Amino acid sequence: MPELRKDPVLGRWIIISKERRKRPTDFVVVKAQTTGGFCPLCPGNEKTTPPEVLTFSADGSRNSQGDWQVRVVPNKYPALVIEGELDKQGEGLYDMMNGIGAHEVIIETPNHDENFGDISIDKMALVFKAYKDRILDLERDPRFRYVMIFKNYGKAAGASLEHSHSQLIALPILPRMLLAEIAGAQSYYAYKERCVFCDIIRQEIMQDVRVVCQNDSFITITPFAPRTPFEMWVLPKKHTSSYCDLTDQELMLLAQNFHETLQRLSACIKNVPYNFVLHTQPLGEKSLDHYHWHFEIVPKLTSIAGFEWGSGFYINPMPPEEAAQYLKESF
Amino acid sequence: MPELRKDPVLGRWIIISKERRKRPTDFVVVKAQTTGGFCPLCPGNEKTTPPEVLTFSADGSRNSQGDWQVRVVPNKYPALVIEGELDKQGEGLYDMMNGIGAHEVIIETPNHDENFGDISIDKMALVFKAYKDRILDLERDPRFRYVMIFKNYGKAAGASLEHSHSQLIALPILPRMLLAEIAGAQSYYAYKERCVFCDIIRQEIMQDVRVVCQNDSFITITPFAPRTPFEMWVLPKKHTSSYCDLTDQELMLLAQNFHETLQRLSACIKNVPYNFVLHTQPLGEKSLDHYHWHFEIVPKLTSIAGFEWGSGFYINPMPPEEAAQYLKESF
Repeated sequence: MPELRKDPVLGRWIIISKERRKRPTDFVVVKAQTTGGFCPLCPGNEKTTPPEVLTFSADGSRNSQGDWQVRVVPNKYPALVIEGELDKQGEGLYDMMNGIGAHEVIIETPNHDENFGDISIDKMALVFKAYKDRILDLERDPRFRYVMIFKNYGKAAGASLEHSHSQLIALPILPRMLLAEIAGAQSYYAYKERCVFCDIIRQEIMQDVRVVCQNDSFITITPFAPRTPFEMWVLPKKHTSSYCDLTDQELMLLAQNFHETLQRLSACIKNVPYNFVLHTQPLGEKSLDHYHWHFEIVPKLTSIAGFEWGSGFYINPMPPEEAAQYLKESF
Repeated sequence: MPELRKDPVLGRWIIISKERRKRPTDFVVVKAQTTGGFCPLCPGNEKTTPPEVLTFSADGSRNSQGDWQVRVVPNKYPALVIEGELDKQGEGLYDMMNGIGAHEVIIETPNHDENFGDISIDKMALVFKAYKDRILDLERDPRFRYVMIFKNYGKAAGASLEHSHSQLIALPILPRMLLAEIAGAQSYYAYKERCVFCDIIRQEIMQDVRVVCQNDSFITITPFAPRTPFEMWVLPKKHTSSYCDLTDQELMLLAQNFHETLQRLSACIKNVPYNFVLHTQPLGEKSLDHYHWHFEIVPKLTSIAGFEWGSGFYINPMPPEEAAQYLKESF
């Protein structure tokens, strides 16, 4: 019998359709052909991107010239533009504002052929440090209310450049996903006086059926009501609502856990396209007792996606307990 | 300068990125190869599906045998099952219930190679009539709270069978999309004492920049804050919250308008994959003053889709005013 499961934060119901159960090997992913040719993100081609806003060399020092390990540049074709005043206006019953924001590209490695999941842990920590530095910098701009950080890996997940990179969009509004999440977490907190994510982590560690991997500070789980096969959340074990609270030591532990998570995913399904999105508190707020920052990793297995996209109602053929088992046993 | 636009019902913000503007010809859709072989939805193969729950012959009469124009059968691989009691349970902080529901396939034409958009208007009206009949029948089952009707056209939109069909899922819960929509419409009504969709229709007719086509009873618009290029909504002009209020004459007018809508879409982008979803009021409720049933048609242009899917935040390179213009001038 299939199951209907409710996401405890969003209240979103998911069908877990065991009858349509699939094994990892049922998801065959054909890797897009290497297109070759000129890559604007490769070392040597720095002049073809807008000037960098941040670089780290391999030892973690900031340097503006020469060898870099991580490099952050404005997007050459930005979805939002940085110059201008926020101008809100109405048009009858409709509301709009001009598209002020920042849109940056985080180049995660100088090596064109290196996947994010294959970057060494200390170098991956530099990518996570770059996220933090950029959020802190953009938070100083009073026009912005949120910084959304995400990665599209693989063509099916929307990546248009091969060279490993993530993206950042600073927004003058709060995205709906975040509002819904905060509202759900707030309503749980109002009732229980506990953070719903802290409760999830406690229960997951106790039940130990959806835990993929963990270390002292971080845990990766397949959520109870996942939208897709192999959806995973990476959460700090300690309650904290802002990603920017991470210390250098915690950045290393995050990288260690994230690295293992992606290694396990790729051991299950080679070349699987995925998106990940950082969920953290709005800019300029004090710590929130009811919110808990985390990453959500959503594999894009196109044989599954369908009307879900338009309706917000998902059918998932892979129970998260089985996905966690596959991931745990993958090496 | 890009624009940020807010959906007046859901409060969802969308970036309209004119700088990344595309023309219809930039979206090249490669039609999936005809797979050939055995089709369980074709006439002559009726025995290979579960027994039908409804058939219409071409003249609109119900018949259980022989020639049919529209045929509704239970899905052979259902996401939810019809037999059993609803059993709700908790697992720590998580909520779940067993997967009771109906999952049916509406076969829209006996002709294997005929697209939904190419079916003649009077025959398309029979498909819409079948939706109504099935909702009314399933509404009698007290376990169900909603009937979701949707279509996946094209492989990229999740269609697994070539033969033109839509699907129906009867649910013991309300999908999140509907809850959010009703909540948004309710809050507008609380403030204005008018239906937000009625106001949208009035404003769209007055502005006449996002209207794609209309007749006496129906109107198709590109919404002010669309998620994708060529997203369209088909709405009844008269306020009504339930799809099942449609008279036979209105079913014909709906088919006329829907047919023209799909013809215009296909004239702009040949073979474009799309999903449509019927949005109507929950089962077993009286008419709602604040809700207004409609269809949402969301083309699936994979070159666009990306992290939006995971974050609920959309970047759309096509202003809806331009999309409407292309659609209006397509023939």
